[in-house]
Amino acid sequence: MAAAENKRAVVLLSGGLDSAVLLAQLRSEGWETLALSCDYGQRHRRELVSAQALAAHYGLVHETADLRALAHLLGSSLTTAGVPVPHGHYTAENMKSTVVPNRNMILAAVAAGWAISQKASAVAYAAHSGDHTIYPDCREEFAQALDNALRLCDWSEVRLLRPFTGKSKAELVTLGTRLGVPFQLTWSCYEGGDRHCGECGTCVERIEAFQLAGVADPTAYA
Amino acid sequence: MAAAENKRAVVLLSGGLDSAVLLAQLRSEGWETLALSCDYGQRHRRELVSAQALAAHYGLVHETADLRALAHLLGSSLTTAGVPVPHGHYTAENMKSTVVPNRNMILAAVAAGWAISQKASAVAYAAHSGDHTIYPDCREEFAQALDNALRLCDWSEVRLLRPFTGKSKAELVTLGTRLGVPFQLTWSCYEGGDRHCGECGTCVERIEAFQLAGVADPTAYA
Repeated sequence: MAAAENKRAVVLLSGGLDSAVLLAQLRSEGWETLALSCDYGQRHRRELVSAQALAAHYGLVHETADLRALAHLLGSSLTTAGVPVPHGHYTAENMKSTVVPNRNMILAAVAAGWAISQKASAVAYAAHSGDHTIYPDCREEFAQALDNALRLCDWSEVRLLRPFTGKSKAELVTLGTRLGVPFQLTWSCYEGGDRHCGECGTCVERIEAFQLAGVADPTAYA
Repeated sequence: MAAAENKRAVVLLSGGLDSAVLLAQLRSEGWETLALSCDYGQRHRRELVSAQALAAHYGLVHETADLRALAHLLGSSLTTAGVPVPHGHYTAENMKSTVVPNRNMILAAVAAGWAISQKASAVAYAAHSGDHTIYPDCREEFAQALDNALRLCDWSEVRLLRPFTGKSKAELVTLGTRLGVPFQLTWSCYEGGDRHCGECGTCVERIEAFQLAGVADPTAYA
């Protein structure tokens, strides 16, 4: 089967809002979707529960790539206990502490390995225009270089799908509403509690996205 | 410090002959070397012991990236018990069963993550001209695409060093002999025993490399 005809994709499903909309968007385009979450030792483990709930909602095959054994090589405030998560709006300085070095490439490489074994032709992730350029691996030129490498990693091409690069998070809320995404199942907060804290950088962005979209926010904040 | 001035490299050290020569070569060029081995659940676990012995010989910081938790996503005859390892010379057919999908990209991505956290400017691996083109991720164009992606994965470039792409395994034996590589510490066999079996594909290649180089083979074969 030619790559163009194979519409089976591995979707990187974090449990967050963005990747839930990605899943719905690809399905609306006729893609068969497999879901892959990553456990890199994030303190906000609640998002993995959300990923599972989203996969169950859509009836998907769902696997988790357990990368916790790599924590001693990588590590950031997202994975290391005792390093505080920045509050309020992100700034260049407080975001640096949330960088997991080369995380996107590691996730894409593992997802592509699973895609090859599942005869899928694509790996999809929910990069969008609000992604912070403090993360070097959120840059467009990096994503293009990664796509080029993935197209050569197997005899069949594995494409990197990033349909949201031109969209804001608020636009994803609008799109997801139209596609019936169960936003109440998604998780954004980095604090690690049982409810969204409403104060950390990702909570602030989530709240603003619903406000800008003019959509009722179903999230129960602490 | 500019990337060109930073001569600190993460060397992918499998425990095999090729990466041992790579380590010696980089050190002879003035590189400070850190060693990274990967545990991807290979049945020939003896090579990890060899990697440790080589790192100790050179007095290196040595870490192992434990990727065993990914076995359910990847998997091949190198990792799956019950799938026989091909014997004798490799053929296209019997080598296909030893493919771990996208292994080289996964290893390079993890190594680059560690390189970033260690402020190293390069990841080195021992690709050589004898690498089998049955592996798509041994192709030159893939390596170049991977290099391009790594150069963009952080604000400082991480380069992919592959100084042996034009050399045969026999040439590596010659070079390693000149550099004093302790070949007796290296491990090639895929069979998983305590001594090299002398019959599997990698043992056959090892034996031939010493013969072609005209160097006494220190290996104790079963």
